[in-house]
Amino acid sequence: MTVGIDAVEIHAGKLRLDLAETFAPAMDEDPGKYTKGLGLHASSFPDVHEDIVTMGANAAHRLMERKGLEPADIGRIDVATESAFDNSKPVSTYVAGCLEKVFDGDFHHANKGERKFACISGTQSLDDAYNWIRAGRNRGRAALVIATDTALYARGDAGEATQGAGAIAMLIDENPDLVALSQEQGFGSADETDFLKPNQQFPSVDGKRSVQVYLARMREALEDYESVAGRVHSEDFRYVPFHTPFPGMVRKAALLGYRHMTRGTAIEDDLEPAIGRQPLPDEFDDESGYRDAVREYMDALKETDQYGEWYDRAIEPTLDIARHVGNWYTGSVHVARVSALRRAREDGLDATGERLLVGSYGSGAQAEIHTETVQEEWETELAALSIEDQLDDRRDISFEEYEEIHDVHNHAKESTYDALTTPSGEFVRDGQGPMNERTYRYVE
Amino acid sequence: MTVGIDAVEIHAGKLRLDLAETFAPAMDEDPGKYTKGLGLHASSFPDVHEDIVTMGANAAHRLMERKGLEPADIGRIDVATESAFDNSKPVSTYVAGCLEKVFDGDFHHANKGERKFACISGTQSLDDAYNWIRAGRNRGRAALVIATDTALYARGDAGEATQGAGAIAMLIDENPDLVALSQEQGFGSADETDFLKPNQQFPSVDGKRSVQVYLARMREALEDYESVAGRVHSEDFRYVPFHTPFPGMVRKAALLGYRHMTRGTAIEDDLEPAIGRQPLPDEFDDESGYRDAVREYMDALKETDQYGEWYDRAIEPTLDIARHVGNWYTGSVHVARVSALRRAREDGLDATGERLLVGSYGSGAQAEIHTETVQEEWETELAALSIEDQLDDRRDISFEEYEEIHDVHNHAKESTYDALTTPSGEFVRDGQGPMNERTYRYVE
Repeated sequence: MTVGIDAVEIHAGKLRLDLAETFAPAMDEDPGKYTKGLGLHASSFPDVHEDIVTMGANAAHRLMERKGLEPADIGRIDVATESAFDNSKPVSTYVAGCLEKVFDGDFHHANKGERKFACISGTQSLDDAYNWIRAGRNRGRAALVIATDTALYARGDAGEATQGAGAIAMLIDENPDLVALSQEQGFGSADETDFLKPNQQFPSVDGKRSVQVYLARMREALEDYESVAGRVHSEDFRYVPFHTPFPGMVRKAALLGYRHMTRGTAIEDDLEPAIGRQPLPDEFDDESGYRDAVREYMDALKETDQYGEWYDRAIEPTLDIARHVGNWYTGSVHVARVSALRRAREDGLDATGERLLVGSYGSGAQAEIHTETVQEEWETELAALSIEDQLDDRRDISFEEYEEIHDVHNHAKESTYDALTTPSGEFVRDGQGPMNERTYRYVE
Repeated sequence: MTVGIDAVEIHAGKLRLDLAETFAPAMDEDPGKYTKGLGLHASSFPDVHEDIVTMGANAAHRLMERKGLEPADIGRIDVATESAFDNSKPVSTYVAGCLEKVFDGDFHHANKGERKFACISGTQSLDDAYNWIRAGRNRGRAALVIATDTALYARGDAGEATQGAGAIAMLIDENPDLVALSQEQGFGSADETDFLKPNQQFPSVDGKRSVQVYLARMREALEDYESVAGRVHSEDFRYVPFHTPFPGMVRKAALLGYRHMTRGTAIEDDLEPAIGRQPLPDEFDDESGYRDAVREYMDALKETDQYGEWYDRAIEPTLDIARHVGNWYTGSVHVARVSALRRAREDGLDATGERLLVGSYGSGAQAEIHTETVQEEWETELAALSIEDQLDDRRDISFEEYEEIHDVHNHAKESTYDALTTPSGEFVRDGQGPMNERTYRYVE
């Protein structure tokens, strides 16, 4: 039985902050710090009437309509988020409540849940849905996995330029139209304090440590994956979507991954005349000598044509969307997959049967490696997406508007700021009920 | 393949508040309000050095030691809680970090996670672990599921008397020693605002609505279960552990369940001369007439010997522990299971092969019904538990001490109150790190 992602839909926050033209001048920074250093051009933000529920429900609504689904076709709704606004009631119940306003029937027999683990819980929810189907408990029904976040940092935090907001809804089913998931998985996981939100909405971040932990856990996960699936090679995979807090982070992960995948291969032999062989720990008397040699090798590797060609083919296409929307936390790696397949379609590639190496990551910290195989109907699925329109239709905001919008979504502030866009054909947040619950309605 | 719970361990918060002798006088209430109305005698509270991490890690540590397990034997650690103190980093990473202080080896290749859905996420995590094994992804390893909560209400809230704190660790594996889980599940789920914590540590509760929603979702879940597993009958199950916010709630659920399970059976025939047949909706002109008749039938049913005997056999034994520890939220239904099996052992019952009907519930709201079959080694497992000792060893606290302890665990307060007990052979919380992360150590 093949199990995987049958369809995806994305909902981008409806506001757009241009980092070079709007954010950089206000910060008195060189635009290149963001566009070249981080690799980011713009961030998506939710308008006043948007939040993680509306973004998730709007993505799921479009997905269900497009695939001709009714509530009874869905046996499971899991929401992955690290932007929850309730410590008990899961976002999935709100999302189902929204969807029940527009569909006949209800989700009363669907298992709803919520997972939290920084940015990796979207993939964990995908895994749970896969297991549920493979365990034979789905009764012919599909699972809806929704990764939705409003990734805000405290104003003035170093992470402020990497903010973003959006949701991705994925339908997990047997005989999927988009990609099949591998049975094999690899995990790299440790108790880390690289990024956390202890009773805080906005994160405490140790930026430098966060990069190290991302790379260390990713390597562990890759080795764990290889222990069950055999060695992976750079040429096995058409695309390698990674969790993308910002494209600059992925550049580091890609280089590390390439070094790992080419070790002991004909590619390493090819590269030897130009940059030598990969340093190995037992060739060195101490750890620091080894590390220096690795750094030197990596610096040289990065400049080779072989690496450059692989990067342009396997990594660069995964970053197209992230560059224009920022970090969507739980949705990020799933946006990277869509980004790659969108490029495949633009390039007229026959991607059916191509494999993806997918590297998910959540601070705190855990990485997961699994692989995916592109399915026959992938192009029909990609053709149905409205990503371009959504990104183009976003309203550009000024720095002053950004400041107000940040306050609107800050749980600690009261704001009466008016929405900047006019909702149409979507779920909106419309207030607060007597139990302090958020309330929603559908705007025709 | 049989998959289920191989072993359990409980960690009760080390402080005990007597409701009749300490809480009632301070509240100027009749003790019977708590002991008879709610069915509760005492609440467990965490001491100053305890929290959801230490309680979960202490339960897991004892479980792993007793079963002779090493970290490499565990492929998955899921924590279920609605008392999380971080919006990004999951409790399971802290728990694994604690366990790595006392075991050789590490959990770097275990998939760690956190689930939130009021009190039902412990059962959802159990389900995920079951699916993971049935999907063949466990590589021979077991899953650790830890349900841990500090169930506090705002001081003066009507729920204050139902507070409690503790953790239960469960090992999910093939060929389990304790109980096998059914492949069949039934869900009853709706977008409800009976109990929630919108950006709050302490819940907003609509007590009356909460009772109605619990019963409505439980009935839906039972009907959904029957749609896949066939009708269930009261005599099919030796024990029926329900989620137990307080024993009084379970009395209501039990009566509803009994009416449902006996409808159209010989038991209903037996009861007919005394209390008539069960009212059916189509016998009534309006909904309210039907409801009144049902209420009348239920009142009469409750007084019958048949119901009383069933209740004493199937329900009452599930409440023994809850009466003395209060509500443990995610752990509650799992404590009810242990409570029943503990009674079986006390009564010298040969329980192997007996079936349990397990009714889990989380506000917000969702119920799940599944069944379990008691396995051969159940008595050895029960014999190994230290519940009596733990409950007996708790330190009784005065009302003044209770007030201080409530403040200690209130995230909005700073407290320098000293611990009331002396830790020994356990994990303790020992401070806060530079990222505001909680830090822990093991006390020999």
